Amino acid sequence: MILGSIEAGGTKFVCATGTPDGKVAKQVRIPTGTPAETMPAVIKFFQDNPVEAIGIGTFGPADIDPSSPTYGYITSTPKPGWRDYDFLGAMKAAIDVPYAFTTDVNEAGYAEWLAGAGKGHRNMLYWTVGTGIGAGYVHDGKLLQGFSNPEMGHIMMPQLPGDTYKGRCPYHANHCLEGLAAGPAVEERAGKKGTELAPDDPAWDMEADYLAIACVDAAMMLSPDIIVFGGGIMHQEQLLPKIRTKFAEHNQGYVSTPPLADYIVRIGLNDEAGVMGGFFLANEALKR
Amino acid sequence: MILGSIEAGGTKFVCATGTPDGKVAKQVRIPTGTPAETMPAVIKFFQDNPVEAIGIGTFGPADIDPSSPTYGYITSTPKPGWRDYDFLGAMKAAIDVPYAFTTDVNEAGYAEWLAGAGKGHRNMLYWTVGTGIGAGYVHDGKLLQGFSNPEMGHIMMPQLPGDTYKGRCPYHANHCLEGLAAGPAVEERAGKKGTELAPDDPAWDMEADYLAIACVDAAMMLSPDIIVFGGGIMHQEQLLPKIRTKFAEHNQGYVSTPPLADYIVRIGLNDEAGVMGGFFLANEALKR
Repeated sequence: MILGSIEAGGTKFVCATGTPDGKVAKQVRIPTGTPAETMPAVIKFFQDNPVEAIGIGTFGPADIDPSSPTYGYITSTPKPGWRDYDFLGAMKAAIDVPYAFTTDVNEAGYAEWLAGAGKGHRNMLYWTVGTGIGAGYVHDGKLLQGFSNPEMGHIMMPQLPGDTYKGRCPYHANHCLEGLAAGPAVEERAGKKGTELAPDDPAWDMEADYLAIACVDAAMMLSPDIIVFGGGIMHQEQLLPKIRTKFAEHNQGYVSTPPLADYIVRIGLNDEAGVMGGFFLANEALKR
Repeated sequence: MILGSIEAGGTKFVCATGTPDGKVAKQVRIPTGTPAETMPAVIKFFQDNPVEAIGIGTFGPADIDPSSPTYGYITSTPKPGWRDYDFLGAMKAAIDVPYAFTTDVNEAGYAEWLAGAGKGHRNMLYWTVGTGIGAGYVHDGKLLQGFSNPEMGHIMMPQLPGDTYKGRCPYHANHCLEGLAAGPAVEERAGKKGTELAPDDPAWDMEADYLAIACVDAAMMLSPDIIVFGGGIMHQEQLLPKIRTKFAEHNQGYVSTPPLADYIVRIGLNDEAGVMGGFFLANEALKR
């Protein structure tokens, strides 16, 4: 059985064919222009390489609620041509197979749960910390979804003592996680690139503290069996042990998590997670 | 069909028989003493009034994870005799029917979802704000559960400007929701009973603000279709509109919730929610 996967990012679309266990057969990269520029190439790829179902993970904001009248649309993006664009509808009109449609974060998170760091766990929280902060939660084999996809990057944060940074979230300034702890916030606060900060720079202690608070909130709200971190910021290897230490400080033993070295961990897959997740979600779509 | 329900509280057990739609046939209240004092009366009630399944909602902490070796136990309570007590095991040994076993908060929340303010919604977040702060989340018809039941009362909170209160949570002092916003915190901060505070006392603005922040965090993490508030503190009728106003201020339009008057609402059931929830959960246990 050959399945299709689309990882639709802000700069490129990765389109691939592959197997239900996530192995790639054929793959192309298509630059993200306007829909008129990008979509014909995407569609042609799957016309030339037929598949039985397609899993899509897209940049957002997107409507991923199957019961919504605008399900499958890109919504309020500033990207030229994509605002209120019926992405899923355009695909279906050209290629009539079952589809899964979710966010790029959810797509990669699903792959981490099925084949990466979350493998074998009943549920898994996936954080990606980079230009923004996003999260996906897989529970009972499904991605958690309500009136919207999770927007965990925007949970409210107590600003840490000594942190006078004005924050960077256009909505919440210094009151939310992303505004205080996404990559651009770290760099603007420090006045230099993250890669120019020494591994023992106090900036990383602060970063770990914010991410630890986010993990405590998640532990109290979702009670995940495992918390997995990916994204550009996590290339700073010193962060993960610091997050665990701060988590313990904030939790104060209140909830009994699994041992922290097994509880707050690094992703198991790398750049391939998005494309793999597309195959896995396509496979689920076929079963429905 | 006659079902059983137990609402096991810190001061009394309510045991009842009733129908799958939640109507009570027979009900007794048994004071919560030690297990040796309380359990024989509970068991005798269901021996005298046979039922086809029993739903239990208990005070905690309790192990409600069916895959755990101590599933059905009361765990680290200071209540004499109940620590590490096999509540579910004692019931099963005496009365061999299917059981559901969860927390008292989850039991009442489940009833709110099926027959109260959450009726007709795909999912629902239930907060109870009183001596403590607890929450239950019903999603896809099931109570959200991971390595533990949710402990949302202990999500971390930014202390509001002007609030110098030391907090009341024995674990998190003034760093968590319960430490800053449960009933005893409101009263200790004000130096008087909640009922002695005027409806327009600024203490209620602060209370609403903390609860609104908790709702924003929940909206970002869980994305519930509706948020329902119950518990003693919510008898202050002025709180709910204030929570909505503060929610809008903190969210800043970032996530598009349903209209707030329909989104953050009061419970639809009253004291009967716990017992009704027991019947509903017993009914689910029968189906499994």
